[in-house]
Amino acid sequence: MTMMASFLDSLVSKMPSLSTSDHASVVSLNLFVALLCACIVLGHLLEENRWMNESITALMIGLATGVVILLISNGKSSRLLVFSEDLFFIYLLPPIIFNAGFQVKKKQFFRNFVTIMLFGAIGTVISCTVITLGVTQFFKKLDIGTFDLGDYLAIGAIFAATDSVCTLQVLNQDETPLLYSLVFGEGVVNDATSVVVFNAIQSFDLTHLNHEAAFQLLGNFMYLFLLSTLLGVATGLISAYVIKKLYFGRHSTDREVALMMLMAYLSYMLAELFDLSGILTVFFCGIVMSHYTWHNVTESSRITTKHTFATLSFLAETFIFLYVGMDALDIDKWRSVSDSPGTSVAVSSILIGLLMLGRAAFVFPLSFLSNLAKKNESEKINFKMQVVIWWSGLMRGAVSMALAYNKVFGMLTKPLIRFLLPHQKATTSFLSDGNTPKSIQIPLLDQDSFIEFTGNHNVPRPDSIRGFLTRPTRTVHYYWRKFDDSFMRPVFGGRGFVPFVPGSPTERDPPDLSRA
Amino acid sequence: MTMMASFLDSLVSKMPSLSTSDHASVVSLNLFVALLCACIVLGHLLEENRWMNESITALMIGLATGVVILLISNGKSSRLLVFSEDLFFIYLLPPIIFNAGFQVKKKQFFRNFVTIMLFGAIGTVISCTVITLGVTQFFKKLDIGTFDLGDYLAIGAIFAATDSVCTLQVLNQDETPLLYSLVFGEGVVNDATSVVVFNAIQSFDLTHLNHEAAFQLLGNFMYLFLLSTLLGVATGLISAYVIKKLYFGRHSTDREVALMMLMAYLSYMLAELFDLSGILTVFFCGIVMSHYTWHNVTESSRITTKHTFATLSFLAETFIFLYVGMDALDIDKWRSVSDSPGTSVAVSSILIGLLMLGRAAFVFPLSFLSNLAKKNESEKINFKMQVVIWWSGLMRGAVSMALAYNKVFGMLTKPLIRFLLPHQKATTSFLSDGNTPKSIQIPLLDQDSFIEFTGNHNVPRPDSIRGFLTRPTRTVHYYWRKFDDSFMRPVFGGRGFVPFVPGSPTERDPPDLSRA
Repeated sequence: MTMMASFLDSLVSKMPSLSTSDHASVVSLNLFVALLCACIVLGHLLEENRWMNESITALMIGLATGVVILLISNGKSSRLLVFSEDLFFIYLLPPIIFNAGFQVKKKQFFRNFVTIMLFGAIGTVISCTVITLGVTQFFKKLDIGTFDLGDYLAIGAIFAATDSVCTLQVLNQDETPLLYSLVFGEGVVNDATSVVVFNAIQSFDLTHLNHEAAFQLLGNFMYLFLLSTLLGVATGLISAYVIKKLYFGRHSTDREVALMMLMAYLSYMLAELFDLSGILTVFFCGIVMSHYTWHNVTESSRITTKHTFATLSFLAETFIFLYVGMDALDIDKWRSVSDSPGTSVAVSSILIGLLMLGRAAFVFPLSFLSNLAKKNESEKINFKMQVVIWWSGLMRGAVSMALAYNKVFGMLTKPLIRFLLPHQKATTSFLSDGNTPKSIQIPLLDQDSFIEFTGNHNVPRPDSIRGFLTRPTRTVHYYWRKFDDSFMRPVFGGRGFVPFVPGSPTERDPPDLSRA
Repeated sequence: MTMMASFLDSLVSKMPSLSTSDHASVVSLNLFVALLCACIVLGHLLEENRWMNESITALMIGLATGVVILLISNGKSSRLLVFSEDLFFIYLLPPIIFNAGFQVKKKQFFRNFVTIMLFGAIGTVISCTVITLGVTQFFKKLDIGTFDLGDYLAIGAIFAATDSVCTLQVLNQDETPLLYSLVFGEGVVNDATSVVVFNAIQSFDLTHLNHEAAFQLLGNFMYLFLLSTLLGVATGLISAYVIKKLYFGRHSTDREVALMMLMAYLSYMLAELFDLSGILTVFFCGIVMSHYTWHNVTESSRITTKHTFATLSFLAETFIFLYVGMDALDIDKWRSVSDSPGTSVAVSSILIGLLMLGRAAFVFPLSFLSNLAKKNESEKINFKMQVVIWWSGLMRGAVSMALAYNKVFGMLTKPLIRFLLPHQKATTSFLSDGNTPKSIQIPLLDQDSFIEFTGNHNVPRPDSIRGFLTRPTRTVHYYWRKFDDSFMRPVFGGRGFVPFVPGSPTERDPPDLSRA
């Protein structure tokens, strides 16, 4: 008889829902949501200010809130909601990276693909080596604890990885497209590099590193890079095929939107499940979805997905910076720093110095190599740009801790770009006015290939191997377009292949019936 | 020196992100996302089927998955992701109820407001009393454990509360608008009732309930109902005012969408913080936002919010039913049932019987009262409708456990409606074709007031108190419209008061600049 009692007991205990649940978490959720609202309103009001943006506002508000909580709690705590690393890697990072892939200027990105790979793979390895070697030397002299080679390599890998979230905040795709695609692309690609390095630390005997192990590492990188990319592309193509084939728009707009969201997230989680690079996967999934899937859905779904992905990414970014602002006042961290201020300053300076050295060691040589391969003057990376790439990439870090630090670099990057590349600003405003779609009927995304579609189709047909040698990217692009038009688009949809049946209910369905 | 070591240690431990986190949670997240995709695809394919919908599909898929997991784990577990009640009340329920308020036909809802209040407040109290009395009588005879009056009242309150999520699944706003607004409205209002009853159980001495305590309970209900509604309305109006005043669309579409989402969620969380009825609050917030805020944002934001809210609600519903399907196979529950099958069947039958009795005790008398007040034959609730209301409301329960049960009632409701009200179907298809907006340029939401705005404006002007007595709702509506047009809309925006400055960048901004 007690089982019925326990059954009813559990029923009764279930009802008052939140009153029994943790009151503190309700309070902190309220505060976080209210602060996010404040960030958005302030960010809007400070839009014209050259020094501020949403993330700096969020950082400041977080900092101020931290001070208030610190005062209220009598110096015991500065954080309300202690969130796990998982919250960041499972829920906040995927929408940010996916949206970056979804909105990236694809042509610009792939034109610089070789350079991006150089920076992201070779560059990261160079930088990692420089930092590891430097840290090994200096830390021994400073006498701070005992580390083995694995630890030094880990530190190297952490500080050699560019933080893609930070890059998004400081560089603007429309103002400096080449820089954006280089620095952000590097950040995406070197996620794969750091996964490889970390797996290597765990599985290799690093004390006697020989040529064989080095080749194995390279093999691992290629394997990981290709598999992650393929997974992202495959998930994107499946979503395009399913939505095109089953013609979802017939019944419901919401199903299309939900399916795109879920498939994008699934690609990231699958990559994490198989120990691949989730960032690479979800980035390429975003690219494929914007090239195929997005063109197979109804007009409403196109507008909805475009803005929803951007909004989710924007909210995740703001949340991260808000949290980092609060986290910066974490007492325990500062207490340990004040125990030995000398060492802390020394370690910080050494790390920053090595970072700069490590980046310089690959940005300038690799840019030189990349410039050699390009005939067109406008595609070359000039010295000023190299300085910006070197500097922008300095922002990095294990997100929650170092982000606040790096923001300092971030704040200096905007004026640096303005100082080094003053003409960029003018070009931008002209460009963005010229290409403005006049109405939402014109596809909003993918302006790049839109221009190319309407105007720039005068790329000379490369008719020999000489064409490939002199204009490699253009040739690749030409053959890709042929392949895309003749095989991919008819199967997976995309611009110009939307299955529009005259009189079909796709666009004319009463929207409020759509949730049936 | 150990502090630097620990600092670097923590840095190192942070990097491999998910590899250190719980592998099992990654697996189950993957499975859940994949299953959600399957639900959507199957739901699309089974769209034409009269017996199936997304939620029944989700329930079936959940059940099947439960069986598979049960077999794989050798009968040890049928669940992958054990989610807390909080997940439901904090993350899944708010978007569902908010969207219901956002998409509800406001005119239909407020025309029946008195009846809804009768059902939701008085009706729930009647039903609760009947169930409590019945349970007290029968459970004593069955000799199952010892309960005090508080426990019996709690059981009464649980089973007297209609489940709004279930109602949304079975009733269709377009097919049966009157029924939908009555049953769903009852579900929303009686959330406040059950909060009052539960607070009463905790704070009152229920053993000698007198007139004074009864009046106090009534006062509590009025207080809670008014405060919850006011909080929702206030949050909605603030969002409308801020977005209209600061003219967010000038810079960014994403900020508008983010702000609407956050403010809606904030209203729910604030209600929970102050121990009010979150469901009532977020429902009214949805109504106010669709009436004011929605008209103050850009065209893109309008389309985006409409579909995003619907999609989130749809995903939350599907997730709940998927989980309930898996949960239905929970071994521990069935083991305890199989320990004493006789008692389980007896208790279940008694509860269902009392439920039917309790509902019958208020639906028929209150409908009769409501009909007395209405002159217009078309607004009256005929006997067939009363049967459907009585039956639809039977679906209820502490969500995770009883939902699977109730689905049985749900499956029977569709054919019941078709049997009792066969003409409804035909009317619908005619209506939904006739009022279809031809393009997305025409506002998609609020068709009801659109029709009223363009055509049906021939409501006679009530010029005396006699008008109020003979056509109370119409008169209230007339004065509300006057108040709305002359005071509310100029302040809070709404249809026809969108601040459109010719040549303003609102609609012409290049969309990919919007995430600056």
